[in-house]
Amino acid sequence: MLLEPIKWKANKIIFIDQTELPSRLKYVRCGDIATLCEAIRKLRLRGAPLIGVSVALGYALAAIKSRTRAGLREDLRKASGRLKATRPTAVNLFWAMKRMEDAFSRLPADMDLRKVKRSLLKEALSMLIEDQDMCRAIGRNGALLIKNRDIILTHCNAGMLATAGQGTALSIFYEAKKKGRKFKVYADETRPLMQGSRLTMWELMRNGIDATLICDDMAASVIKNKGVTKIIVGADRIAENGDAANKIGTYGLAVLAKHHKIPFYIAAPSSTIDHNIKTGRDIPIEERRRDEMIYVGEKQTAPIKAKVYNPAFDVTPAELITAIITESGVYDIKRFRGI
Amino acid sequence: MLLEPIKWKANKIIFIDQTELPSRLKYVRCGDIATLCEAIRKLRLRGAPLIGVSVALGYALAAIKSRTRAGLREDLRKASGRLKATRPTAVNLFWAMKRMEDAFSRLPADMDLRKVKRSLLKEALSMLIEDQDMCRAIGRNGALLIKNRDIILTHCNAGMLATAGQGTALSIFYEAKKKGRKFKVYADETRPLMQGSRLTMWELMRNGIDATLICDDMAASVIKNKGVTKIIVGADRIAENGDAANKIGTYGLAVLAKHHKIPFYIAAPSSTIDHNIKTGRDIPIEERRRDEMIYVGEKQTAPIKAKVYNPAFDVTPAELITAIITESGVYDIKRFRGI
Repeated sequence: MLLEPIKWKANKIIFIDQTELPSRLKYVRCGDIATLCEAIRKLRLRGAPLIGVSVALGYALAAIKSRTRAGLREDLRKASGRLKATRPTAVNLFWAMKRMEDAFSRLPADMDLRKVKRSLLKEALSMLIEDQDMCRAIGRNGALLIKNRDIILTHCNAGMLATAGQGTALSIFYEAKKKGRKFKVYADETRPLMQGSRLTMWELMRNGIDATLICDDMAASVIKNKGVTKIIVGADRIAENGDAANKIGTYGLAVLAKHHKIPFYIAAPSSTIDHNIKTGRDIPIEERRRDEMIYVGEKQTAPIKAKVYNPAFDVTPAELITAIITESGVYDIKRFRGI
Repeated sequence: MLLEPIKWKANKIIFIDQTELPSRLKYVRCGDIATLCEAIRKLRLRGAPLIGVSVALGYALAAIKSRTRAGLREDLRKASGRLKATRPTAVNLFWAMKRMEDAFSRLPADMDLRKVKRSLLKEALSMLIEDQDMCRAIGRNGALLIKNRDIILTHCNAGMLATAGQGTALSIFYEAKKKGRKFKVYADETRPLMQGSRLTMWELMRNGIDATLICDDMAASVIKNKGVTKIIVGADRIAENGDAANKIGTYGLAVLAKHHKIPFYIAAPSSTIDHNIKTGRDIPIEERRRDEMIYVGEKQTAPIKAKVYNPAFDVTPAELITAIITESGVYDIKRFRGI
């Protein structure tokens, strides 16, 4: 069953607070940019494509809250700046914001305030619909790769909770299931924020996918001893040469895939490809707060003063990627530069 | 400063409850086999060499609690059976128990009960002292490999909290520091029970080692981007051919070491080598309870009904190991079959 991790209703952005999962399915009604920024920073709203849709709706929200036609440009500029400052790695955020800004700049300078608001909201909502279409298309393209008896490992959450639709990597599982394919999935827990155990397991179980949870340090053993046949993950930013930034841990899985001679796939919308960046070296990697590694809930799991290193993403070099699956097709990494 | 994770006092085994770390340094006074078995099963007492010393002291404790010379043999047989059933993978447990049983069987059948008790306690306490000597010797042998500016990754806890002495893998850091070597350590968190963040970080910080905590899924990124120069871990059982069982996650690190062309070392006492086992295939791997992956403390981190796979150990094939460091020397894996 399709979730609606984000929607627009009565001039509010309604979204699932993902930090409450899997214990509670709680929707937040968000009517201001500050709440939206906090939600993105704290990962209440997360997943590169979903962040893209969120900030587009945020831009429309800022327009709707604006009081005068004269002040609108400045209000939008401020909102855009605040939203762009939330998270540095996922390019979809900047891509979505640029698209909204371009839409605004194309509007006649003398257009009535009410019409501007309606027009920007329409643009944001069409991005939401396009995201849903993109998810289905990635799923259908990727499902061509899934065979009966496949055992597939995934990391983090590239699913319904990471997009406005049915996900990217996980959409492939949903489409393969529709086609009657029989396969098993192992989901990495994904420390420190546990998007795999909290979100991916929750979502796969809801959708009847045969899924088993493992800790991140079990992946090598599972690949070897349980006969994993392929690894499929999402991406937050892909460089021109195919190097892909994704949730921390992805690079290690790609090395394991190579060692065990199994294919390693990235599934992501083409909006994830950053044509301004030649290689993965130029992708900024977000480092997050130390608390994430000192506590789990109330439980202290490390010395309070422990020195920690907490990068949220890593970069998988193109040579470890078998193919990139987008809404327009499956691109063997050797042909990738072309798309 | 040397910890005493285990000692004998007034006919009680006194040990640190490691599940309370790093929040609290709590000692348990244990006067019965049931409490000792529970402590080993729940990992209050853990680490292959420490488990060995614990069960030896447990055997002596069972003798001391025995009421009659006639009933002693049966009391000891029962205690040994219960202790051996606690955990299947670490061979030190079986090795220590066999040594105590052999010591008992060597005693004259008509020996006075009080003398038998004293003799078995003496045997167990000498195993404790030998463990401390073994730790120092492993440390000194391994320290020869440590260079200034080394950046060393370790996994789980093979330290003071895993032995009766100053550890195995971590003893190398303590001895290298004594020699004035300057180096940095990264410690893997080690899910699900977090022996790396809870125990290794706590112990390294107490002993002035420059240590940084990472999550298990960050290891590949840290090896590549922070320039890790070597990986050193412990072992719970080593087969004749050098295949080594250690905490889950070890095998993946060995694959990463190979990919990044850095050496991968196992540090363990020679009692960890199981001469009854030809290859790692024959090492039984303990699977632990699902709760460990559904909750951290009170916090639910996965759906209650999630299917999980929770192996406590994995086996690293000899061909991925550079050398095995024991109390008697550093053995290049190619020469290992000989020792």
